[in-house]
Amino acid sequence: MVNVSEKQSTLRMARAKGFVKISAEALTAIRSHRIAKGNPLEAARIAGILAAKNTPQLIPLCHPLGLTHLDVQCHILEQGIEVEASATVEGKTGVEMEALTAVSVAALTIYDMCKAVDRNMVISDIRLVEKAGGRSGHYLREE
Amino acid sequence: MVNVSEKQSTLRMARAKGFVKISAEALTAIRSHRIAKGNPLEAARIAGILAAKNTPQLIPLCHPLGLTHLDVQCHILEQGIEVEASATVEGKTGVEMEALTAVSVAALTIYDMCKAVDRNMVISDIRLVEKAGGRSGHYLREE
Amino acid sequence: MVNVSEKQSTLRMARAKGFVKISAEALTAIRSHRIAKGNPLEAARIAGILAAKNTPQLIPLCHPLGLTHLDVQCHILEQGIEVEASATVEGKTGVEMEALTAVSVAALTIYDMCKAVDRNMVISDIRLVEKAGGRSGHYLREE
Amino acid sequence: MVNVSEKQSTLRMARAKGFVKISAEALTAIRSHRIAKGNPLEAARIAGILAAKNTPQLIPLCHPLGLTHLDVQCHILEQGIEVEASATVEGKTGVEMEALTAVSVAALTIYDMCKAVDRNMVISDIRLVEKAGGRSGHYLREE
Amino acid sequence: MVNVSEKQSTLRMARAKGFVKISAEALTAIRSHRIAKGNPLEAARIAGILAAKNTPQLIPLCHPLGLTHLDVQCHILEQGIEVEASATVEGKTGVEMEALTAVSVAALTIYDMCKAVDRNMVISDIRLVEKAGGRSGHYLREE
Amino acid sequence: MVNVSEKQSTLRMARAKGFVKISAEALTAIRSHRIAKGNPLEAARIAGILAAKNTPQLIPLCHPLGLTHLDVQCHILEQGIEVEASATVEGKTGVEMEALTAVSVAALTIYDMCKAVDRNMVISDIRLVEKAGGRSGHYLREE
Repeated sequence: MVNVSEKQSTLRMARAKGFVKISAEALTAIRSHRIAKGNPLEAARIAGILAAKNTPQLIPLCHPLGLTHLDVQCHILEQGIEVEASATVEGKTGVEMEALTAVSVAALTIYDMCKAVDRNMVISDIRLVEKAGGRSGHYLREE
Repeated sequence: MVNVSEKQSTLRMARAKGFVKISAEALTAIRSHRIAKGNPLEAARIAGILAAKNTPQLIPLCHPLGLTHLDVQCHILEQGIEVEASATVEGKTGVEMEALTAVSVAALTIYDMCKAVDRNMVISDIRLVEKAGGRSGHYLREE
Repeated sequence: MVNVSEKQSTLRMARAKGFVKISAEALTAIRSHRIAKGNPLEAARIAGILAAKNTPQLIPLCHPLGLTHLDVQCHILEQGIEVEASATVEGKTGVEMEALTAVSVAALTIYDMCKAVDRNMVISDIRLVEKAGGRSGHYLREE
Repeated sequence: MVNVSEKQSTLRMARAKGFVKISAEALTAIRSHRIAKGNPLEAARIAGILAAKNTPQLIPLCHPLGLTHLDVQCHILEQGIEVEASATVEGKTGVEMEALTAVSVAALTIYDMCKAVDRNMVISDIRLVEKAGGRSGHYLREE
Repeated sequence: MVNVSEKQSTLRMARAKGFVKISAEALTAIRSHRIAKGNPLEAARIAGILAAKNTPQLIPLCHPLGLTHLDVQCHILEQGIEVEASATVEGKTGVEMEALTAVSVAALTIYDMCKAVDRNMVISDIRLVEKAGGRSGHYLREE
Repeated sequence: MVNVSEKQSTLRMARAKGFVKISAEALTAIRSHRIAKGNPLEAARIAGILAAKNTPQLIPLCHPLGLTHLDVQCHILEQGIEVEASATVEGKTGVEMEALTAVSVAALTIYDMCKAVDRNMVISDIRLVEKAGGRSGHYLREE
């Protein structure tokens, strides 16, 4: 792991997004609560939050961080579900991996909950959209 | 979790793919072994394999499975790195989530290893490409 | 761990229950979806299922088991929430610890989600209510 | 997870208790070290401490915290074993979930170690008995 | 991970040993139960058993296995503590890594419990002493 | 766990070493990249880093710590592979267990990667070689 021992502890934030492409039929099943395994959005939220806290065990060179905030939101759009996560920490290194991991695992959870009704889903556009608080300044992705 | 107690234990296989879009500059750094954190492809392989085995703790409604094979391969292409994983089990339920989780975490690991040289990477096209051995027959994605 | 190498692999089931005593005020907040952290029942269900799968890491002398079914249900009663879990496996040893662990962690999750509105909750009556499939025959608690 | 980024980091403490109701016969076996699986009190202490450190992975919306102290004690009483845990942290949020999780998993471990000699045990009265150091002041349960 | 899908499932056993060299003064403290952190042998036993079950998460290319037996024993000798672990499984691949991991983590736990009274301990001679049940026949280390 | 709540948070470092004795034949296979499972040194580095971050879940009485640096290096010597790990933290307690755990799990990983070509490997000499930053001053092992 990169040595961050001498870096300053500052308030750092990161926000990431991703998208699960889902068939119209499966989206209707989700909206009308007909997914047999339960509510995919709620399961995805919980799974994403847990995964964010587990980031240093999943991503080998990530530093352990004491997250002070983590939020996952899922929005049903026309062609699928958009997942967004934001993470905050007071620490010596950034939290983009925590936000990206939350998005990825939330998306996988949606996939798992819905795969009985749609076996052609695709997870894409997992990306950092904003980052603040580190030495490299404020990052805002152009979209 | 879905009740699979009465299902037949059969040999099941799944294969998934994903893509990490990376700048030409960063790809050159990877190819010439100039990534400070180490070899992203090797770290991604290890992280993907470990994550596949951890799938039932990451994805809430996944059944625990005794994987008999798991392989992760990373290929450097012109615009980024393609990640492919295949999983095999002798069990009562499929292993697509194991293959998809391996791909996702391998992709996140590549992202983490390379984010110092490219902060605009995007992870996309995470999808099942083949599945065999279950009641639903052989699935091969049209691509 | 007890040596179960020579035991027969049979279909085994266990069912456990527990109760979280909650104030009328907090129960009203739960029923009307006014808990700031989200839906406690859904979070408890997910947390209980994940914990059941993690039982061999939580309870030192528990054998690892490939659960084929795990279900957690939460019922709002007059004085609190009743949690019930059932677990099934085809294996050489019973799954009562998996069911009891699911109940315990689901109850703790309800506690965590609601502690901002009630700091006097009590978790009690965590017990095995039914067990079947092992050498010791069918057990049904008298209640 | 609740956003605690702006909260003050203070020394916080929590103490929780629970009770495992056990038959006289099984308590005698425990006292005379005749439990085949080993010493239930020592296994419970270790399992409770490990579980407390694992709280943010077990309870979905718990913040990760760097516990500076965690103690689990088991007392053999007339009708069973009382489990008590206390947790301390210098952090932005309280540690009652860590103390309650330690008590719950220690109680489950006692149950597992003794279930061969008593299949009617009940875990109950898991509750917060004291809490100090947060904005809400000192809490001491009336008992 | 090596593909073991086509291998036969057989009863497999492995036994490993290791040694923690400890000063006479510290051994006396252990024997007379004067180690402040608790009984190192009991903590080591529990930690070793838990670690064995966690082997596929610790050792990247190890297959997940449903251990049917795992035992850790610690013997106080003249110059330190000998740790021995044996593991059994009915499966498609051997359990030597489970036995070796149990020994290693048990030894580390003894080190941790005793480091306040001896800072010069050395862990050594971690080795496989016996293995049975696989295609390669019975292995017994010459010692 | 020992109560470190009142201890000062300082920059602390620890360095540990260990050795895996390997046959000349297997060392040649490693050097010429003919180990079927992949590069043992790279897998060992990743596994050691992950294990160091997992120390409080492996070693029961270890405090959770936010490591700011962790490095694992493997050197091929004449009779085997030397593993060295260093850990750094700004915290209230030392990081020798993190360094020793990294060395142990890296060594076990080398063992696992190479056991198909050498079944007589021995892991030994796992020891603390340097420690700095705590109340007990600078420790440098005489070797």
